[in-house]
Amino acid sequence: MAAIDVPIKVRWADLDAYGHVNNAAMLTLLEEVRIAVFWHGAGLDNTDGGFGVDGESATFIARQEIEYLKPVLYPQEPIPVRTWVSRMGGASVDIDYVIDAADGTPAVQARTVVVLMDTASMKPRRLTEAEREQLGRISDEPLTFRRS
Amino acid sequence: MAAIDVPIKVRWADLDAYGHVNNAAMLTLLEEVRIAVFWHGAGLDNTDGGFGVDGESATFIARQEIEYLKPVLYPQEPIPVRTWVSRMGGASVDIDYVIDAADGTPAVQARTVVVLMDTASMKPRRLTEAEREQLGRISDEPLTFRRS
Amino acid sequence: MAAIDVPIKVRWADLDAYGHVNNAAMLTLLEEVRIAVFWHGAGLDNTDGGFGVDGESATFIARQEIEYLKPVLYPQEPIPVRTWVSRMGGASVDIDYVIDAADGTPAVQARTVVVLMDTASMKPRRLTEAEREQLGRISDEPLTFRRS
Amino acid sequence: MAAIDVPIKVRWADLDAYGHVNNAAMLTLLEEVRIAVFWHGAGLDNTDGGFGVDGESATFIARQEIEYLKPVLYPQEPIPVRTWVSRMGGASVDIDYVIDAADGTPAVQARTVVVLMDTASMKPRRLTEAEREQLGRISDEPLTFRRS
Repeated sequence: MAAIDVPIKVRWADLDAYGHVNNAAMLTLLEEVRIAVFWHGAGLDNTDGGFGVDGESATFIARQEIEYLKPVLYPQEPIPVRTWVSRMGGASVDIDYVIDAADGTPAVQARTVVVLMDTASMKPRRLTEAEREQLGRISDEPLTFRRS
Repeated sequence: MAAIDVPIKVRWADLDAYGHVNNAAMLTLLEEVRIAVFWHGAGLDNTDGGFGVDGESATFIARQEIEYLKPVLYPQEPIPVRTWVSRMGGASVDIDYVIDAADGTPAVQARTVVVLMDTASMKPRRLTEAEREQLGRISDEPLTFRRS
Repeated sequence: MAAIDVPIKVRWADLDAYGHVNNAAMLTLLEEVRIAVFWHGAGLDNTDGGFGVDGESATFIARQEIEYLKPVLYPQEPIPVRTWVSRMGGASVDIDYVIDAADGTPAVQARTVVVLMDTASMKPRRLTEAEREQLGRISDEPLTFRRS
Repeated sequence: MAAIDVPIKVRWADLDAYGHVNNAAMLTLLEEVRIAVFWHGAGLDNTDGGFGVDGESATFIARQEIEYLKPVLYPQEPIPVRTWVSRMGGASVDIDYVIDAADGTPAVQARTVVVLMDTASMKPRRLTEAEREQLGRISDEPLTFRRS
């Protein structure tokens, strides 16, 4: 019942002409975080055949919200992205993320609303009980945006 | 006193493995819209020396919010991005955008909070009266997000 | 029987932390050039049902070669990419490109070897006579690389 | 005196609409390989103050050559990029790379010509003896391109 740290490698090509990670590239980093969680089960426990996005399910990004509080520079090592589930709806999940600056205060805060889709019908489908139980392992309170 | 259409070329590389414009790439398209407005004066009237981001000013993206309502496919021609100023603060501006789907209903709705910075001090600076007058030419009511 | 100029918009996100168009982003610009030629018939004459990549054909990039002679900065307007067919093989075509610097000398020279594929079999297929005639309209001598 | 394997994470956003790593994205992967070697000393021995690109030196990409022999799909784990120095000139170095397909045969072969620049003068500068010694540790025979 807690956020997890997902390590993501920033690339030099993510930097813009100011030498900071570009605002759009930041969403690509968060995409890699979601892949780690939903496809590869980071922080979850897939051994019981629960949550996982396979050929029968897909995810659709319905909404994103991101605050840029401080510039993120190029780090040599992968950066830890603090990641958790902040809401579970019938067919959707909110994922919250925080990337810290070097001084330990947040540089970026973000939220993605992910809708689970049935790939056959391409319609939203409900979360199963097994999925709720698995996502519960990385659930926590929603973050507070500064300017929402 | 109205929104403008800024034509932006989608690239094939913006598509993801589903054949849709990727969620992060969408923010790159909106970045090009802002460049057209702030740097090149699309919809503004720069002849009186008013608004414009030159060597003395820079813009910092403080926040973005984006809703993906329908997939955007690869179009041959540049797509019109409906763009307007939905709020002017002391040192910041909200830019709202809508990209329509082929059927004329919104496929994407977004908002960027842009903070004006003084490049010498790298601190926020107030909008001038000339800038407010210019941005007023492309001002309109804030859009309504579906899920905020 | 001559090269054509294909206008391509550089994006701010194509710049790297040095403020130059990134070396990999340059290949994305050339990809857009090929799409203009092969999919949309830039410089060709598609009215007789000749060359064109539709659902029955696809292109596979077999090889690329690119020389960076001068940095390419961010231009407001689309840049003309001089483009021509420098070789026609049985099932493949060489496309040559030059992007000029502001002083009119080449900043970038490149070549892509494109193989035509049959989408049903996903095997290379031979160029038709109609395609050879069409590509002949934008054919010219191969460029000379400085360091090959 | 041998090639090294540099592990590079492919991102989902590197895939194109065919589900393969995009041809231009491949050069971004190779950029990350060079950063690992030149900036962070992968395979080299920087303890004696030898090779390294710091504030006094920069690298300029003069030329790239890349062959795409098989599609590269999305792998969960970082892929090993076999990397070595195949030529040392007065002020430039050739870096060769091979990425293998799942069957162990090459999917991609590439070469980058890197020129060392003095950042003060922005002119090419000669490799030092210490740098030659260090780069010698990852030197090997040039690869053979299939179509050069």
